[in-house]
Amino acid sequence: MSVEGQPQTDVLVIGGGVIGLAIGWRAAQHGLQVVIADPDPGKGATHAAAGMLAPIAEAAYAEREIFALGQESLLRYPAFVADLQGATGLPVGFRQSGTLQVAYDSDDLAILAETRQLQESFGVHLQQLSARECRDAEPMLDPSVRGGLLAADDGSVDPRLLARALLQAADAAGARLVRQPVTEVVCSGGRASGARLADGSVAEARWIVLAAGWQSAGMPGLPPGIAPPVRPVKGQIIRLRTTAAMTAAGLPAGLLRRTVRGVVRGSGVYLVPRESGELVVGATQEELGPDTTVTAGGMWELLRDARTLVPGITELEFADAVAGLRPGTPDNAPMIGLTELGGLVIATGHFRAGVLLAPVTADTVAGFLRTGAQDPIWRAFAPGRYGASSQGAARQPEEAICR
Amino acid sequence: MSVEGQPQTDVLVIGGGVIGLAIGWRAAQHGLQVVIADPDPGKGATHAAAGMLAPIAEAAYAEREIFALGQESLLRYPAFVADLQGATGLPVGFRQSGTLQVAYDSDDLAILAETRQLQESFGVHLQQLSARECRDAEPMLDPSVRGGLLAADDGSVDPRLLARALLQAADAAGARLVRQPVTEVVCSGGRASGARLADGSVAEARWIVLAAGWQSAGMPGLPPGIAPPVRPVKGQIIRLRTTAAMTAAGLPAGLLRRTVRGVVRGSGVYLVPRESGELVVGATQEELGPDTTVTAGGMWELLRDARTLVPGITELEFADAVAGLRPGTPDNAPMIGLTELGGLVIATGHFRAGVLLAPVTADTVAGFLRTGAQDPIWRAFAPGRYGASSQGAARQPEEAICR
Repeated sequence: MSVEGQPQTDVLVIGGGVIGLAIGWRAAQHGLQVVIADPDPGKGATHAAAGMLAPIAEAAYAEREIFALGQESLLRYPAFVADLQGATGLPVGFRQSGTLQVAYDSDDLAILAETRQLQESFGVHLQQLSARECRDAEPMLDPSVRGGLLAADDGSVDPRLLARALLQAADAAGARLVRQPVTEVVCSGGRASGARLADGSVAEARWIVLAAGWQSAGMPGLPPGIAPPVRPVKGQIIRLRTTAAMTAAGLPAGLLRRTVRGVVRGSGVYLVPRESGELVVGATQEELGPDTTVTAGGMWELLRDARTLVPGITELEFADAVAGLRPGTPDNAPMIGLTELGGLVIATGHFRAGVLLAPVTADTVAGFLRTGAQDPIWRAFAPGRYGASSQGAARQPEEAICR
Repeated sequence: MSVEGQPQTDVLVIGGGVIGLAIGWRAAQHGLQVVIADPDPGKGATHAAAGMLAPIAEAAYAEREIFALGQESLLRYPAFVADLQGATGLPVGFRQSGTLQVAYDSDDLAILAETRQLQESFGVHLQQLSARECRDAEPMLDPSVRGGLLAADDGSVDPRLLARALLQAADAAGARLVRQPVTEVVCSGGRASGARLADGSVAEARWIVLAAGWQSAGMPGLPPGIAPPVRPVKGQIIRLRTTAAMTAAGLPAGLLRRTVRGVVRGSGVYLVPRESGELVVGATQEELGPDTTVTAGGMWELLRDARTLVPGITELEFADAVAGLRPGTPDNAPMIGLTELGGLVIATGHFRAGVLLAPVTADTVAGFLRTGAQDPIWRAFAPGRYGASSQGAARQPEEAICR
């Protein structure tokens, strides 16, 4: 792996979650020499993601730019998935069956009305459903559901299948996976020039893409102000499963026809059905540092809220419960683009939307790596927007920034 | 395994749960040639048992005889465990720290008063605790707990460790384990004389002990009226775990000092702490036939009720959830003893108390196998008590009964 002299590798991607794998795949498709370093690819936040592709719901209380980025990525999804399936023949569980956001009581109904207003201000017109229309759309909903908003174009994907397919596609396109943790980013000539691996060897490359999720923040070797200020936000999910008897009785695989989201007594919950029969219930949001303990309390809250919206979940089989750490940023928006440190591209901070944002992130980062042109869509997501660049401005460029 | 001619095996035990393993071990200790047949020993009801040793609580609404049998078995537990540890050096998680039965609201308090009356009618005097005394005894109890009854002599054991130790002890004593299902009980000369195994071979023995839990009812080859009328009663449990941080903060391993039981809104729940840090929460009781699906609803109910009594469980780590099938009988009492079919001993139907009743069942069955004398304690638990013997009475003994 260790390469002496001139780097033969064009791109070293640190992190093999959906973001890093998708970038590595796309860059390799462009003919670049790619190495992806991850001790256990797809087993971080990706492994605990539900795979909702719901830009509108995600941006409900956030910024127009996050919504626009998500919308752009959703538009790219069908081609992204078709390309991936063409390359690998592997399924990724993609479906575009919509999201139904429901209100359980009158407080929730008020939240729904606000959401609708916000979304209309983004130029999105969602279909408003009455209580009866909600139940017609999703017969398993609790009869007390008061109304809903249907985002018909929303989709979902199975993140574990997606990671597996990306891994195979990247490999088929010529990218090389190194199953080792990166212990340090290495600089030379004032640029990021490689990464030291756990076995002590150094992988050199013309470009280093930092896509290590929440662990990007603590990456050794980066000059002050360059490491992205991401923090781990713990999310627990539960995977349930419809049984053969339920399927025989005519119930949809995963009990629902589409993703259902709701707020129950102030606490948000979503249920994402899959054609495999899975129903993913998520997710807690906990600020506990790098803790991935699945707790009795997390499971209890998820089951309680899911059961309130869809009482029939109690009959489902329990498959597993996992916790992942999503990379949160100060403004909940991702960080995609260049920093003051030459040779370094950052692609992290996707928080709850890493799966949704993988296509647009991968396409634009790989495009930059090929052409050197920065995509205008990166503008609102510049890694330097938290003041790192103002710190850096006092320094000598090139020399001072790198150890 | 197949033995032609005269059987060299004294005892063939069908079923390697705690009952079958304990009988096989004790019989082998007496110098008998023992074979135990089970495709996956310890993985049936034993695997999903909490391991409470609480004869008083179990018998609360049942019969005096069940209580007396449980009490007798509890008295034998310390020697049983000491003997087992002497033979194997393996831990079984035995502790005798008591059971605290608590009342959450005034309805529960009334139930507790009834329980106490019933228990005093059995000659058992439990310690009645005020709300404050309950919290002094178990600081993690919810402040709204109204009062409790302490059974100081109750204990608990880890059934998975117990099965492992029994397996090793039986082996060390010379018993032979055959990891195959029994497909049929074989008769000859009007007696049960062996069992056909899945590979088609026949294992012959002087005595056949049927200890196959709920599967005993459907055992092929038994004449009508002989198979025990046991049914599978599904029980789901959740295993939680205290974390290293909790232990460092001075909380007891498993959060509680002793087993806590309670009735929450009419629904019974128990919490059994172990020295390993586990806290077992159980158990549902479901009459669904041979279904071992762990359901979202079962987990939700257990977590809800456990949380009501001990709110701190929400901080515990989730370890796993499993479902087992307990062998229930028409009167909830076990079936231990002989039937009209010569050569057959039945030891099943222990319902929720298989772990508790293993010592007394094993000691008395193994004693009979050695001496031919039936223990008087079997009287109330005769397998023929449901009318099987009256059916059999119309038949010719010896010839007609066996195919």
